Amino acid sequence: MKIGIYGYGNLGEACEEAIALNPDMKLVAVFTRRDTSSITLKSKDAKVVSCYDVMNYRSRIDVMINCGGSSTDLPQSTAFLARHFNVIDAFDNHESINLHFERIDENARQSGKVALISAGWDPGVFSLMRLYFSAFLPEAKPHTFREGLGQGHSEAAKHIYGVKDIRQYSIPDEKMREKARCGQLGDDVTPFETHKSVCYVSAQPEADRHEIETQIKNLPGYFLRYDTKVNFADDEELAEKNSDMSCGGSVISNAATDINGENRASLELKMNAVSGPAFTAGVLLAYARAVFAMARRGERGCKTVLDIMPRDLSPVTDGNELRSTLI
Amino acid sequence: MKIGIYGYGNLGEACEEAIALNPDMKLVAVFTRRDTSSITLKSKDAKVVSCYDVMNYRSRIDVMINCGGSSTDLPQSTAFLARHFNVIDAFDNHESINLHFERIDENARQSGKVALISAGWDPGVFSLMRLYFSAFLPEAKPHTFREGLGQGHSEAAKHIYGVKDIRQYSIPDEKMREKARCGQLGDDVTPFETHKSVCYVSAQPEADRHEIETQIKNLPGYFLRYDTKVNFADDEELAEKNSDMSCGGSVISNAATDINGENRASLELKMNAVSGPAFTAGVLLAYARAVFAMARRGERGCKTVLDIMPRDLSPVTDGNELRSTLI
Repeated sequence: MKIGIYGYGNLGEACEEAIALNPDMKLVAVFTRRDTSSITLKSKDAKVVSCYDVMNYRSRIDVMINCGGSSTDLPQSTAFLARHFNVIDAFDNHESINLHFERIDENARQSGKVALISAGWDPGVFSLMRLYFSAFLPEAKPHTFREGLGQGHSEAAKHIYGVKDIRQYSIPDEKMREKARCGQLGDDVTPFETHKSVCYVSAQPEADRHEIETQIKNLPGYFLRYDTKVNFADDEELAEKNSDMSCGGSVISNAATDINGENRASLELKMNAVSGPAFTAGVLLAYARAVFAMARRGERGCKTVLDIMPRDLSPVTDGNELRSTLI
Repeated sequence: MKIGIYGYGNLGEACEEAIALNPDMKLVAVFTRRDTSSITLKSKDAKVVSCYDVMNYRSRIDVMINCGGSSTDLPQSTAFLARHFNVIDAFDNHESINLHFERIDENARQSGKVALISAGWDPGVFSLMRLYFSAFLPEAKPHTFREGLGQGHSEAAKHIYGVKDIRQYSIPDEKMREKARCGQLGDDVTPFETHKSVCYVSAQPEADRHEIETQIKNLPGYFLRYDTKVNFADDEELAEKNSDMSCGGSVISNAATDINGENRASLELKMNAVSGPAFTAGVLLAYARAVFAMARRGERGCKTVLDIMPRDLSPVTDGNELRSTLI
């Protein structure tokens, strides 16, 4: 499987590293808007190519992994790439997922390519769990708790005028998480109530800090409706914060399994990653494999993790082997 | 969706109850080998029918849920049912899954029906997790820990000559589970080493207890290779044990996310159910929905949970709604 990486930030670098863990994959090229000579890859056989030359690689790449930012890059670039490549992204703005989906779907159907959006940890792995838990335990709504660095949040707020750099961290309410585990958190309780959001912002010297704070707190899809605390920090403090890219969280359902509520069952998926980008990269690569499998079967259009047969994620293609080792 | 339940033991009863939690489903009939007048259903509109009359229901049932025992019933009855019905079972003998699969697949392909096997908690939900975790974290093998009543184990050992009744319980090694969470349990460590198995057996008065113990300990797929302790109990003790049908467990992966092993990530799925059969019933019904969706799309043959698109498990059929509420 020949992989292209489009965008070489934290996530792009993590994808490059993760490809080495997947023997069925090979990195062909990294595409960047930066000066190509400024980037040195760890992968010997891969090239650094200007993103303006991406069309030259149409026949040389099986799946393009778009590692751009969700808030401004992906809506444009995944749509563009879907016209020419099988493509996958980790688009993470929950609130505009359908808008993103429709645009990509139209382009991928026209080009006969397969696209897959929102394949990270949340959305992504956690979305999967929300679906499974809802289906297996229909009497309760799953609750999601996220903690640690929000890559999408940070990246989205970086575009605010006057912001030099920003890190956002989610802090789940542990009492509410315990309630969810015990089946005592109502279906009507939303993530806005179960999380706090803390930001560390390094602002331009001349910037209006009050205005920055207002802009951050009202950013739809990432901050709006959340209890958000904005701290201004100098570059040093931010660099220190910057070094911790860990993240984690859980999806929890606890529900009655009969009509009288005599018996209950609970499901919890817990994730922890020292590096959020590295974990996201692992998820993206598994789904890139599925995208390629679907493309070879002649499928087309935009997909999400909810549309993917689990077995398409595995490097093991023999059904008997899969069943005997994993079932 | 018109549902038939084939076999009315613990699992069959649990399925009947769980149908009431799924508004898109309706129980048409329960099929039994017993005297039909000996069974009174909780569902008003459903009938109790002799399993010998099941062919009369060929056009009246969308999906048949086979609730028979894995060790002797399912290999015959799921194969038979797949010739005439879309059918699903919770076949749980890990070691003979491919044999079971091939037989059902042949029948379902010939009849143009969809069959799905091994859709319980393990195999089933835990199999799914083993696949996902292996795909997202390829540097480690997932470890599975099971605890509590083993329905399949108990049912399989019940057929041993001289056994009146039996309950099997799995006890995971908590130290090893903690090691797995920390990424310190080697890939080569098997479930045989991480679990103990304890049985409570009520034997026929004239039975050879030593022979029973030997037979249990050598039952392939359920006891063979496990550290198994067999306790003989009188009917009263067994009835007491019998009342606890709780079960649970976890699937755990902890792996490096880069080639140098600098960063690690972990995934754990934890399940707990007061009633094992009730939880299994919830899983079976969600997969019955998927079987029906596939049958309507013209698919045929035998499937496992690894072949099912997650979205087919949901009662929500509108893609936009699914994406906006679950992604």
